[in-house]
Amino acid sequence: METIHVNLGERSYDIHIEKGILDRAGAYIKAVCPRAKRLAVVTDDNVDPLYSERVTASMEAAGFYTGVFTAPAGESTKCVTQLSALWEAFMHFGLTRTDAVVALGGGVVGDLAGFAAATILRGVDFIQIPTTLLAQVDSSVGGKVAIDLAHGKNLAGCFYQPKLVLIDPETLNTLSDRIFNDGMAEVIKYGCIANKGLFNFLLAHPSREQVMERIEYVLTTCCDLKREAVEADEQDRGMRMLLNFGHTVGHAYEKMGNYETWTHGQGVATGMCMAARMGVAMGVTPAKGVVEFLEGLLEKFGLPTRIELGETPEEREDNWETVEKTIGLDKKSTGEDIHFILLDTLGAAHAHKMSRDEVLNRLAALYGR
Amino acid sequence: METIHVNLGERSYDIHIEKGILDRAGAYIKAVCPRAKRLAVVTDDNVDPLYSERVTASMEAAGFYTGVFTAPAGESTKCVTQLSALWEAFMHFGLTRTDAVVALGGGVVGDLAGFAAATILRGVDFIQIPTTLLAQVDSSVGGKVAIDLAHGKNLAGCFYQPKLVLIDPETLNTLSDRIFNDGMAEVIKYGCIANKGLFNFLLAHPSREQVMERIEYVLTTCCDLKREAVEADEQDRGMRMLLNFGHTVGHAYEKMGNYETWTHGQGVATGMCMAARMGVAMGVTPAKGVVEFLEGLLEKFGLPTRIELGETPEEREDNWETVEKTIGLDKKSTGEDIHFILLDTLGAAHAHKMSRDEVLNRLAALYGR
Repeated sequence: METIHVNLGERSYDIHIEKGILDRAGAYIKAVCPRAKRLAVVTDDNVDPLYSERVTASMEAAGFYTGVFTAPAGESTKCVTQLSALWEAFMHFGLTRTDAVVALGGGVVGDLAGFAAATILRGVDFIQIPTTLLAQVDSSVGGKVAIDLAHGKNLAGCFYQPKLVLIDPETLNTLSDRIFNDGMAEVIKYGCIANKGLFNFLLAHPSREQVMERIEYVLTTCCDLKREAVEADEQDRGMRMLLNFGHTVGHAYEKMGNYETWTHGQGVATGMCMAARMGVAMGVTPAKGVVEFLEGLLEKFGLPTRIELGETPEEREDNWETVEKTIGLDKKSTGEDIHFILLDTLGAAHAHKMSRDEVLNRLAALYGR
Repeated sequence: METIHVNLGERSYDIHIEKGILDRAGAYIKAVCPRAKRLAVVTDDNVDPLYSERVTASMEAAGFYTGVFTAPAGESTKCVTQLSALWEAFMHFGLTRTDAVVALGGGVVGDLAGFAAATILRGVDFIQIPTTLLAQVDSSVGGKVAIDLAHGKNLAGCFYQPKLVLIDPETLNTLSDRIFNDGMAEVIKYGCIANKGLFNFLLAHPSREQVMERIEYVLTTCCDLKREAVEADEQDRGMRMLLNFGHTVGHAYEKMGNYETWTHGQGVATGMCMAARMGVAMGVTPAKGVVEFLEGLLEKFGLPTRIELGETPEEREDNWETVEKTIGLDKKSTGEDIHFILLDTLGAAHAHKMSRDEVLNRLAALYGR
């Protein structure tokens, strides 16, 4: 077993990475929540039939009383209606302040369950059991929990650290290629912004099968980079901002496709390429060797490197308007400026303070507008 | 001007108490939120016509762009529908992470606006301008923000400290006697649990007019006791629990009357009397001198000292069931036990760990059940 300790003072916690850990979840939770009697397991209708029974069996063996709360799978579950339904369901279940909420599933489940845990009874203990690659390397660590609003993604939420993260790499075997590759976009992002060794490993192992052979290395490396960023900057300012590489533009693609056409990873993949190209145009990112390697690697994992705005002029205008609105609302902004992440090289990045207009103008130029 | 500094490390803030401070709000906010451009003022339709214009005029004079968001007055506004409406309205207004939300009104407005501020964009700066006595002495200080659920009051929320609290005692002049006395229940509570001097002052000045003549003393004394409790225990465990004196049973009365028949203060007033009588029955509270003085003082301010369960046997059964459910769900509970606040004497109290059943049995005895 690999264990990463995230050191955040009294909000510190461990990330355990081990094959088959699902069946030992109860004992690990008992150790960090000794006073809890009830565990509210939040999952979705994809994950529920696969893993709920195993996880609750291990919890019940450890003496917990469990309830399973299943939401519809998909991004649209991250909404106020589901949040409110969870709040009421937790109370109906008899949850008290010393009990805990467990997220069993991907990023959507983790974000929704985490926000519900952070706010029910003004906050109860929260455990992450991420089952997708995206959630295992990114969203389950660091305490960012949220739901989407009509105005955009992740606009209502909290910073709320889990008490424990349990990662079972075997759950990745049940993912479709599309969802596996969705997570690969974030793995590649870590390589880009902070770890050239990881980037080179991926260049040398450019397939799902090869990555799965060394999955503990990949998960541990990514979680450790996330830990470093989170420890340096729990509140999402400064260093932690680097993790947003590809995300400002990526969110616009997701929104453009109504969160259905493009997965988060697909949006981020194209967002990274656009940010890399903008960096080149600004003379910040080297003109040779970065964009090509990044695009080449993304393509190996079936990820897009460019998303067109549309086929007809009307479509292009509509979608550009969506891009303008999304970037205008980007919550990473402080006042009128955006902290936009640019690559210094493969393996290093920095937050560049740019006006919203400059970001949009430079992006427009890449679309020949 | 009286200023109380609440020392909570990087979450520290000042409470300013001064007549006419509404007209100087802009300058005070500028000092604590130098980077904010937009201020979202949340109020209700009672307070809006009285004070919104004066407050926003002072904000605009200080260079802020302001928006006023008016919710219906009343406890039912503390709901997920209003929360969600505020989230979307803030985004429509163009709020960014460096802007701030201002609560202008009573406890309902402060709780709703505070929860919205804590969660929009994962948290923006929050300013309290309480306009009721209850909000000025209690709910605006300490960072407890929440909405109500179908299962009970304040069940979904956060701990989220304001950046600044501005208290204008002149706003109390526009309150009805019912709402003024609502706040007096909490003032009397402070006397009971921690300050015999305040209790004696009230015994000697037992009318709204007399209290208003020395209102700065009363507000400063109460806010300072709240500060002490909050500093000792930001997370609502231990010492801060004393502030819940009268509240466990009080919440049941509020719920019994559907949050309409009885105000918070009326519930708390009767809850304090019941807790005092329970303390006497348990031999914890002196048999003489406490209950009589407490009841006498509450009556001077038109507050109830006993609330009957109903006139018919059916009504009494129904209402007792509500009491059982509410106390069963009390979020101050840890596991099966409740930290019930009992008086040692007038001016001193402690948290008594009791099973839910014992609390209910002792309360039942007071109702001859």
